[in-house]
Amino acid sequence: MTIERIVLNSERNVSLTTYIQPVGGEYGQIERRPAVLVIPGGGYHFCSDREAEPVAFAYLKAGYQAFILRYSLNEQSVWPNPLDDYEQAMALIRQNANLWHVAEDRIAVVGFSAGGHLAACAATMSKHRPNAAILGYPVIDGDCVREYQRTAPDVVAHVDGNTCPCFIFATRTDNLVPAANTIHLIDALYQNEVAFESHIYSNGPHGLSTGDESIEGNLFCERYPGWVEDSVSWLSDVLGGVTPRGLAGPRFGAKVNGNRERTLNLDCTLAHLMGNPAAKAVLDGAAPGWDSDAPSGRATVIRLGDNLKYMGLDESRICAIEEKLNAIENRGKEA
Amino acid sequence: MTIERIVLNSERNVSLTTYIQPVGGEYGQIERRPAVLVIPGGGYHFCSDREAEPVAFAYLKAGYQAFILRYSLNEQSVWPNPLDDYEQAMALIRQNANLWHVAEDRIAVVGFSAGGHLAACAATMSKHRPNAAILGYPVIDGDCVREYQRTAPDVVAHVDGNTCPCFIFATRTDNLVPAANTIHLIDALYQNEVAFESHIYSNGPHGLSTGDESIEGNLFCERYPGWVEDSVSWLSDVLGGVTPRGLAGPRFGAKVNGNRERTLNLDCTLAHLMGNPAAKAVLDGAAPGWDSDAPSGRATVIRLGDNLKYMGLDESRICAIEEKLNAIENRGKEA
Amino acid sequence: MTIERIVLNSERNVSLTTYIQPVGGEYGQIERRPAVLVIPGGGYHFCSDREAEPVAFAYLKAGYQAFILRYSLNEQSVWPNPLDDYEQAMALIRQNANLWHVAEDRIAVVGFSAGGHLAACAATMSKHRPNAAILGYPVIDGDCVREYQRTAPDVVAHVDGNTCPCFIFATRTDNLVPAANTIHLIDALYQNEVAFESHIYSNGPHGLSTGDESIEGNLFCERYPGWVEDSVSWLSDVLGGVTPRGLAGPRFGAKVNGNRERTLNLDCTLAHLMGNPAAKAVLDGAAPGWDSDAPSGRATVIRLGDNLKYMGLDESRICAIEEKLNAIENRGKEA
Amino acid sequence: MTIERIVLNSERNVSLTTYIQPVGGEYGQIERRPAVLVIPGGGYHFCSDREAEPVAFAYLKAGYQAFILRYSLNEQSVWPNPLDDYEQAMALIRQNANLWHVAEDRIAVVGFSAGGHLAACAATMSKHRPNAAILGYPVIDGDCVREYQRTAPDVVAHVDGNTCPCFIFATRTDNLVPAANTIHLIDALYQNEVAFESHIYSNGPHGLSTGDESIEGNLFCERYPGWVEDSVSWLSDVLGGVTPRGLAGPRFGAKVNGNRERTLNLDCTLAHLMGNPAAKAVLDGAAPGWDSDAPSGRATVIRLGDNLKYMGLDESRICAIEEKLNAIENRGKEA
Repeated sequence: MTIERIVLNSERNVSLTTYIQPVGGEYGQIERRPAVLVIPGGGYHFCSDREAEPVAFAYLKAGYQAFILRYSLNEQSVWPNPLDDYEQAMALIRQNANLWHVAEDRIAVVGFSAGGHLAACAATMSKHRPNAAILGYPVIDGDCVREYQRTAPDVVAHVDGNTCPCFIFATRTDNLVPAANTIHLIDALYQNEVAFESHIYSNGPHGLSTGDESIEGNLFCERYPGWVEDSVSWLSDVLGGVTPRGLAGPRFGAKVNGNRERTLNLDCTLAHLMGNPAAKAVLDGAAPGWDSDAPSGRATVIRLGDNLKYMGLDESRICAIEEKLNAIENRGKEA
Repeated sequence: MTIERIVLNSERNVSLTTYIQPVGGEYGQIERRPAVLVIPGGGYHFCSDREAEPVAFAYLKAGYQAFILRYSLNEQSVWPNPLDDYEQAMALIRQNANLWHVAEDRIAVVGFSAGGHLAACAATMSKHRPNAAILGYPVIDGDCVREYQRTAPDVVAHVDGNTCPCFIFATRTDNLVPAANTIHLIDALYQNEVAFESHIYSNGPHGLSTGDESIEGNLFCERYPGWVEDSVSWLSDVLGGVTPRGLAGPRFGAKVNGNRERTLNLDCTLAHLMGNPAAKAVLDGAAPGWDSDAPSGRATVIRLGDNLKYMGLDESRICAIEEKLNAIENRGKEA
Repeated sequence: MTIERIVLNSERNVSLTTYIQPVGGEYGQIERRPAVLVIPGGGYHFCSDREAEPVAFAYLKAGYQAFILRYSLNEQSVWPNPLDDYEQAMALIRQNANLWHVAEDRIAVVGFSAGGHLAACAATMSKHRPNAAILGYPVIDGDCVREYQRTAPDVVAHVDGNTCPCFIFATRTDNLVPAANTIHLIDALYQNEVAFESHIYSNGPHGLSTGDESIEGNLFCERYPGWVEDSVSWLSDVLGGVTPRGLAGPRFGAKVNGNRERTLNLDCTLAHLMGNPAAKAVLDGAAPGWDSDAPSGRATVIRLGDNLKYMGLDESRICAIEEKLNAIENRGKEA
Repeated sequence: MTIERIVLNSERNVSLTTYIQPVGGEYGQIERRPAVLVIPGGGYHFCSDREAEPVAFAYLKAGYQAFILRYSLNEQSVWPNPLDDYEQAMALIRQNANLWHVAEDRIAVVGFSAGGHLAACAATMSKHRPNAAILGYPVIDGDCVREYQRTAPDVVAHVDGNTCPCFIFATRTDNLVPAANTIHLIDALYQNEVAFESHIYSNGPHGLSTGDESIEGNLFCERYPGWVEDSVSWLSDVLGGVTPRGLAGPRFGAKVNGNRERTLNLDCTLAHLMGNPAAKAVLDGAAPGWDSDAPSGRATVIRLGDNLKYMGLDESRICAIEEKLNAIENRGKEA
């Protein structure tokens, strides 16, 4: 591995540290590796060392390339400086994807606390979007954000169908950044049909990082450190695994349904289709189990294709329905 | 172990099955065991066997007594029949605590799907409250509840400061009971200052139960089955462990702060005290680090006592403040 | 589940307790379940409750049927009484395989301490062989065995190629049954080419059972309780998993090579073939990478077929060699 | 972290790569960190990259300093060159303990395959002994060693009471380095009363390293990758943990009994004392539960002090016995 510190902005003391593992040779057909860009916390006042390298090691062990962004702090963290720092870092990583053996469409941000705010901004507002985001006890809500940087934006308002899949964790008893931030974020992700996983552990103070014995001396529940391995497993599900035979495809798609596609399709939920008169015209009568007056709870999550299969419709009739739906433009919710 | 099926209501086909482990002898000073009351799901149409005994075994192994409630179904599940079934079961368990070697103040409900609805009702509306609740992909929202039993209540509206600590899990891609139910519940628990832990796994269909290979053949993310051991660990934190030397005290308190006590105290959050003019009169000037105009995010979670310690106030002055606060009645939020 | 205690021998107070889970219904295509026969320890003086039901629960949760054997003790444990008790129990289980929904070729014994001695005797000397054996801190060596029952046999001398696959665990610091017992057993299993897995944990006293907090109050290393889940995973590898679609095949074969088959074959190790002049006549010249004077270490474990593939021999030539070997009788080591 | 490659011997192409984490600052009272010296395998023909950095990352994450030794290979691996390389590396680490923030009495070697042979030689024959050794599928037996380096020594013959605590793992079906190597080593460690932990996993080929998806594409049992976290936990038990408040003491002593001390003591086993006439003179009569003709199995592991406590002897009499034993020189087995 080679470690290099690249100054991104000397005036604002912004740097990107790169941790690049070799490829080829004994690593078989691995030509490019997925990567994490770690963004430590520190209330926009400092960048915590405890949320930097110890975090990177976990993903390096799993075969990832790692980067650590040290971004604009204090007066220099006036918005959009930190987000600009991120954009510069991610652009640089993608430009050097070949040199650094990075699979440029498999890059996750991993941010904590204020760094979790910046990572969440990357996931929702940036030009150079990450492919997944891991957010530890992130600052999300506008009023909480403003305690650390008055000019920085609320995140929830920017969540939309283009937000990348997220893995979010926090502790219920965080006494600095309320767990409400995490709850509001997952609520917004849910409403915008973004894929996510979340873990809110019952007990633990703010800033636990990996929860390793070497990092943290406070009392917290023993489930907490599990987020590290869980996030590695989740990344592999979402981005695809890294194996000696090369990069595997994702185990689960990044989309939870087809409601954000350009045209209607079998992966749209019943509730989504019910809201479209053209879809109703196609489905009424033709689709057993379809009921445009169905109760609202279940209909928001069952996808039409699954429902037709449960109902035993034969494949040719399902294909006929699919064709007609694909001809209808999807309105109002496009990502 | 002895297993007994007790008919609670023959007309409605309601039963309580008891799984009672011995105490004493080689089990040392264990005289009473904590217990779980398992409430299987099935949309108020059936009681799922897969969410009954396989679940009970996990807690039996950990040293708990176990009970399975089979409650009123279909037409007979008109409200409040299922809740009455629960009340009858829990009352019976506590009446027989001695006979069944049950620690009557250490009884958790464990419910799934519609059974998660019933367990959540037990946690929020019942007369015979459980001491903790474990809720698997529960039905919570009124409109979702009504799909299964038209007369059954929404849960969120009943969450208050008396709700017991909860452990809630679900899958993001549940295609039958939307994960929104879980999100709305944890939001309500948070706002009412109830202790909880939650895990929303990224991928998996409805009804995964323990996620054991023998239970479920569908594809789901490999983190999912972790909820079982995590819930055992959480129960031990909240109720106290069961050891050969007897029952241990809880590792973490069931309260996240002192905002619901009868009088004001050092465990109240800054934000709670700011709202009370008498408290402000005590604290202004006397309490360093106290600022009645402090930004709102952090103030909702920091407890006064912790804050005073961070500020280095000596113990005698903290005691003096405590005494004065204890003389002030807590209004408006009492549990 | 139904629990029944069946008296096997009233004079010697021998019983088999059956824990039978239902099949069919929601359990899908599971018609028969694999099973464990738990044999508690107690120095042939008592049968420990702590090594009985708490152990059974772990396998019940995984979908197994469970049985607990309480065998002849004290004066009545004169050999072969305990082994006769086992034979009677295993014969009964297989006779009732249909009634009890047991897959009769997927039954493991799980024994601890003196019960581990009895389970190891079942694995090596019995008429009604189990299909796998899980042995916890077992008594194996003759001199150690005789401390508990003067007439009982040493196990090591009876290990041969017919011994079933074994999973053995112990603690290095066991102050009652020396870990040497476990080491001698795995050495014998290795030499007889029996499949096994073993875990010797660094620290812990004798008799830890599952290592659950409710079972054991002594200090031991935190890896210890991992044996439970590891043994469930190993059983699934060896016996095949139990899934809602029915029983799956084993993930790994029960044989480590082909040295015990009736005729020579590609799964024989190089060292085994070197010892057979007829095999040498076939292989010399025909098999690249084959060297009848090769150093002895590696040759004892590499199987001919693997070696030929590494050497790049084409399939037709491998088949030709296989045919010739299959015509040669395997001498001296047949199981 | 800083990475530096230090050439130890340019002629033989020997190098030590250092991975040094900072101390102080946010890491609290950590002034020195424990360390691992990783020794990759490769049959004394190459140094495997897969057994180098991916392994180091796991211990770096746990707060350790890490070093990787690339030692003499091929013709240059004639003995004692590789051991000399090790001596040079370990001497250098201890000399630079201050500069590199290393706790010089908390350094473990971690070796694989042929590197496991070298690490085992370090544990048993070196001048600069490590404080613990982690050995992955090591080459131990003379005849197996000689396949890779004709002049290199057998390890078993060199195990004695001075050997450091060891953690050894292997797979039963290793088709290159027989698991017999591991069995022979743990047998020798046991006989010489050395503390150890061992895991022999049922299925997996040679050279699995961490067993991460990115490292290895072959089929192996899912318990295998558990050795990594288990070894981190074991190291913390044996060397003491690294916490923000500084280094903690070991959880378990490195000695399994007192049989190797300079004088007799209460931690000697009964069997050891039985062999000493002076001890018998002290104990006969004075020590209840002591029986100089006791059967041999248990007596080899029970320590006198524990036995006297079980028998209920009061403390003053135990002290009197201790004093007399301490006056007797320990013969024949001194470390």
